[in-house]
Amino acid sequence: MRLQDLATPCLVLDRGILDRNLSSMSARMRRHGVAFRPHLKTAKSAEIARRAISGEAGGITVSTLAEAEYFAACGFRDITLAVGITPAKLERAAAMVTSGTRLTLLTDDPDTAAAIAAHPAPLRALIEIDSGECRGGVAPDGGALRVLGRALGSRLAGVLTHAGHSYAGRTPEDMVRIAEHERSAAVRAAWALRAAWLPCEVVSVGSTPTACHARKLDGVTEVRAGVYMFNDLFQAEIHSCTRSDLALTVLASVIGRRPGTNRIILDAGALALSRDRSTAATSHDAGFGLVWDLAAEPRYGNCRIEAAYQEHGVATGDAPLPFDELRVGTRVRVAPNHACTTAAAYDRYFVVDGGDEIVEEWERKNGW
Amino acid sequence: MRLQDLATPCLVLDRGILDRNLSSMSARMRRHGVAFRPHLKTAKSAEIARRAISGEAGGITVSTLAEAEYFAACGFRDITLAVGITPAKLERAAAMVTSGTRLTLLTDDPDTAAAIAAHPAPLRALIEIDSGECRGGVAPDGGALRVLGRALGSRLAGVLTHAGHSYAGRTPEDMVRIAEHERSAAVRAAWALRAAWLPCEVVSVGSTPTACHARKLDGVTEVRAGVYMFNDLFQAEIHSCTRSDLALTVLASVIGRRPGTNRIILDAGALALSRDRSTAATSHDAGFGLVWDLAAEPRYGNCRIEAAYQEHGVATGDAPLPFDELRVGTRVRVAPNHACTTAAAYDRYFVVDGGDEIVEEWERKNGW
Repeated sequence: MRLQDLATPCLVLDRGILDRNLSSMSARMRRHGVAFRPHLKTAKSAEIARRAISGEAGGITVSTLAEAEYFAACGFRDITLAVGITPAKLERAAAMVTSGTRLTLLTDDPDTAAAIAAHPAPLRALIEIDSGECRGGVAPDGGALRVLGRALGSRLAGVLTHAGHSYAGRTPEDMVRIAEHERSAAVRAAWALRAAWLPCEVVSVGSTPTACHARKLDGVTEVRAGVYMFNDLFQAEIHSCTRSDLALTVLASVIGRRPGTNRIILDAGALALSRDRSTAATSHDAGFGLVWDLAAEPRYGNCRIEAAYQEHGVATGDAPLPFDELRVGTRVRVAPNHACTTAAAYDRYFVVDGGDEIVEEWERKNGW
Repeated sequence: MRLQDLATPCLVLDRGILDRNLSSMSARMRRHGVAFRPHLKTAKSAEIARRAISGEAGGITVSTLAEAEYFAACGFRDITLAVGITPAKLERAAAMVTSGTRLTLLTDDPDTAAAIAAHPAPLRALIEIDSGECRGGVAPDGGALRVLGRALGSRLAGVLTHAGHSYAGRTPEDMVRIAEHERSAAVRAAWALRAAWLPCEVVSVGSTPTACHARKLDGVTEVRAGVYMFNDLFQAEIHSCTRSDLALTVLASVIGRRPGTNRIILDAGALALSRDRSTAATSHDAGFGLVWDLAAEPRYGNCRIEAAYQEHGVATGDAPLPFDELRVGTRVRVAPNHACTTAAAYDRYFVVDGGDEIVEEWERKNGW
């Protein structure tokens, strides 16, 4: 089967680029001498997880209980769920722990910490630290941290932070600085716990931009990152990668032509691409995605999807589009703004290796 | 089972509101004396489709081949696929036609029209007319229309237009005017075909706003609409409904609290709600959705999701939030900007009927 034979829209994943992205991040972490725990929130695929942990300690990160259950069922035994848990969700977590998965939870809430500590199953949790994003987490130095540590007691596994505000950075220097904030917040929190005679085995940090740009990771025990596996136009804008490192594209068909206004219409709209507009805040606004040719070459100039309806993407370029080539039915590849939100609409990857032949088909696990 | 027992995030559908929305649209179409062909692009559910066509002629509209195949497998025999088809997609369409489904396709492309006409299976198609949206479709009066009509020949079923630009209207008067443009474009196109001795059985128009506001539908044979079933915050802003007509919400749990900045964090982020920001262009920007209480009452003031990360929604309000009530684990209902994009992340509806008891569970069919 070849790209030309696939029903559109669908996800195309280039295995060569994927493997290159995986190995360059692993090599970076080896140079730092720190363990790497890939985040599967983007890929949500056991096949990709196996490739990502090859040569690593074996642990993975996930963002939902459904992902945790899926990966546990696929044989992964060391899983960190890096989104704050609620008391009602502890039963599903406990069921996984009881069947042999080393599942590590996350909390920044004293009531939830108490529920974790009181649970009959041997649950364990990290305390979420706010390293500057102001989303979840407690301050790295302060009473709230010690209250949480004492509430968790022997269930305390350590601390975790995510410098999500790295996405607001724009220069490599921004990322170096934010990575150091992330590191120092986590390490300070770890020492604050230890100073209170509380255990802090795990000191976990990470985001793709900070993982790429961290100068030092002293005191950190593990790094997490997820979107680096695929990369996307936004990550290229914030210096995590270049556009040639994008492993994921959406295969689409031309379904309409408007030469009079230099526009084509694709069967990839808001559902196939997501409504993510993250590149709008960068110096290269890609609309809802860039339109490349079937070989993923940017041969149509800066052709981009300027409007996304439910099933229609309307694309235009700065120069006249080659309408003799772009007939109804012509296949193109759309490079997404944000791989995580785009991939979430699909249940599988069609895998290529540079060419147009489908060499594998890998499943994805969506939902909660 | 009750709302309190469900894993979050998930879709909650209020059957009473759904049925009221369905019957008021059906009644409106009966008053116009025109056939109604509900669009299932929003609901993507056989159970909802059966309720929507109850008392109607029986036909439905869909937006993807996967929907068409799903509904055909569920026993629906009269289906219009209202997104432009490509030659490569004709095989899947032909397989449905051959197994007894009256599937009507859509095209505005002469090559595709020729492929439809030449296909061994008895395919039929509508010509897409541009009634002012400038997305798909040919002009209602002009040579392109006749070229398409002649290319389709005996496979020509009629004309179809969608006034998607009604979403840019803001007043009921805008909608009345756009509905009349939509009607007159379709009817003019139909007469242009008939004047050229071409058949034009179907004259199909529709969008939720124009279906709600059309004053007359003379010459139209059928109306399509989809999001009216659920409604959403955007439709309330553009006068298709009021906020009390929203049948669909996302059930979410509080996973974090930041009283210092008057913010709560929910387990409903960009994947659970979509990144749709359509209300940003209206006078009541709802962020990524409004946060209502478990009974879907807007008891937290104008509490809205101001930031949506992959699995985190950060909400705030104009007044202090009741943090004594909003503990980690508290369930809330999020009213979405756009029901179509939000529902697309889920594979089922948990159905309530005014209260908190789950009275039914209905499946959804996503994908392409």
